[in-house]
Amino acid sequence: MNKIVICGGTHGNELTGIYLAKKHNWFLANPSAIAACRRYIDTDLNRCFALSQLRVESEELRVEHLRAKEINAIFGGKGTENAPDLILDLHNTTANMGVTLILNSREPVSLAISAIIAKEFEDVRIYMQPEKRDETPYLGSIAKRDVCIEAGPQPHGTLDAKLLFKVERIVFRFLELAEAWNKGNLPKADGEIEIFTETRSIDYPRDSDGNITAMIHPALQGRDYCELRAGMPVFLGFDGKEIFWEGETCYPAFINEAAYYEKGIAMNLTELLCSTVPLPTPC
Amino acid sequence: MNKIVICGGTHGNELTGIYLAKKHNWFLANPSAIAACRRYIDTDLNRCFALSQLRVESEELRVEHLRAKEINAIFGGKGTENAPDLILDLHNTTANMGVTLILNSREPVSLAISAIIAKEFEDVRIYMQPEKRDETPYLGSIAKRDVCIEAGPQPHGTLDAKLLFKVERIVFRFLELAEAWNKGNLPKADGEIEIFTETRSIDYPRDSDGNITAMIHPALQGRDYCELRAGMPVFLGFDGKEIFWEGETCYPAFINEAAYYEKGIAMNLTELLCSTVPLPTPC
Repeated sequence: MNKIVICGGTHGNELTGIYLAKKHNWFLANPSAIAACRRYIDTDLNRCFALSQLRVESEELRVEHLRAKEINAIFGGKGTENAPDLILDLHNTTANMGVTLILNSREPVSLAISAIIAKEFEDVRIYMQPEKRDETPYLGSIAKRDVCIEAGPQPHGTLDAKLLFKVERIVFRFLELAEAWNKGNLPKADGEIEIFTETRSIDYPRDSDGNITAMIHPALQGRDYCELRAGMPVFLGFDGKEIFWEGETCYPAFINEAAYYEKGIAMNLTELLCSTVPLPTPC
Repeated sequence: MNKIVICGGTHGNELTGIYLAKKHNWFLANPSAIAACRRYIDTDLNRCFALSQLRVESEELRVEHLRAKEINAIFGGKGTENAPDLILDLHNTTANMGVTLILNSREPVSLAISAIIAKEFEDVRIYMQPEKRDETPYLGSIAKRDVCIEAGPQPHGTLDAKLLFKVERIVFRFLELAEAWNKGNLPKADGEIEIFTETRSIDYPRDSDGNITAMIHPALQGRDYCELRAGMPVFLGFDGKEIFWEGETCYPAFINEAAYYEKGIAMNLTELLCSTVPLPTPC
């Protein structure tokens, strides 16, 4: 792993990555949105990197579609030999998720390094978001492997100093372990690792006009990665009526993420697997 | 007090007031910003209500300046006999301020009612922001008296169910006490009341380009309304350097409010006065 990109400001109001990128001269993905301190100007940049989107040629592309094509060109081209070996993309969430390492594939090196970090740092978890890489719309997918480092809870447009320094330490530890991998001496993570795998998302209850009619229940608020079983409260209506979970036992994450109201996501559901993470075979 | 306006969505991403206004058919102040889930489209609506601004006639006024003139016309005209008797304007903050009743003047009836509510509810405080009413830019200033109900901590663009129901109870209690005042049987608040009076704001440390160079110190984060004395930590630089308070003993509020980064405000300072609140003389 030689060509490594560290990236902040893919969302312009997620300040941890933006200020770390400014401090260390890392890459700032969406300068227009950063200047406006908004998630995006026209559309979510982190949903613009599917190969089919990157191939669109048009005079009428909007801010983020243009920027996605530009970023893809700067770093070598998704799916090509010139693509970066690794992208670390720094994000924030309003959900109480601690630091979450989001992987888009079971690529063994990034998984092995993430497993070590999840063991070494408190309140760090691995979140698997399986996708077909070509059609994955996330910025990191233009690299051969990537980890999205999602840090919360933090209101967008603000900075939590403790969280910023923690993310900084995690990024530097990741680079150190990538260097260890290059030198053939990456250690093996001890024991079993918890891996939360996304299964589906669920929306808020809504009326026929699309307006939400309920909020996250206070008993669920902040309980990301805790077990949710049938019969437990999930939503609380504006009328005070409680709504209880009737689905499968699961581990919700991204509970009450501000940016997901418009996406129709009240939370993502995950299933939890505990397993050892094998040391990848050197190539 | 007969003409009472209850208002949400003066800032389009402060959802407590927006969803309470939708529930109860109260007034939504900035529909364009609400649709975009942003604080404002062109400029902060809650800084557009000084008499001098409302009097500007121009073809080139932007969204919020136009809307301010429209709202002022709808409700009778700032400084006139037709103005509302009372506006309650519902806001959110990312700061850990509980529910704060912000008063712009020592107007005795709104102060007496606020004092009762501060006694009856937990974590409710009175915040005095003395202004010359004609030139006060806040929406509430178009009424004869107003209280801004500021609820936090809540990330903008999200809903905290407990906070929403608490604000709802406070608004209804306010209306009940306004009715008691009309009937001549407003009770007197028991004992002394804490009143936090804004003295000034302080900015984040910045470099010569205007970029912030430090964050709220973790030891101060969340400690709104707690005593700040010389020698206590205030900021923590991106370089890890701590900055200690050298100013007057005070009680900060709006610590780390997301919307204030662009205004050059890291926090507002207040001084604390404890006093009894006299029962106003009926007119």
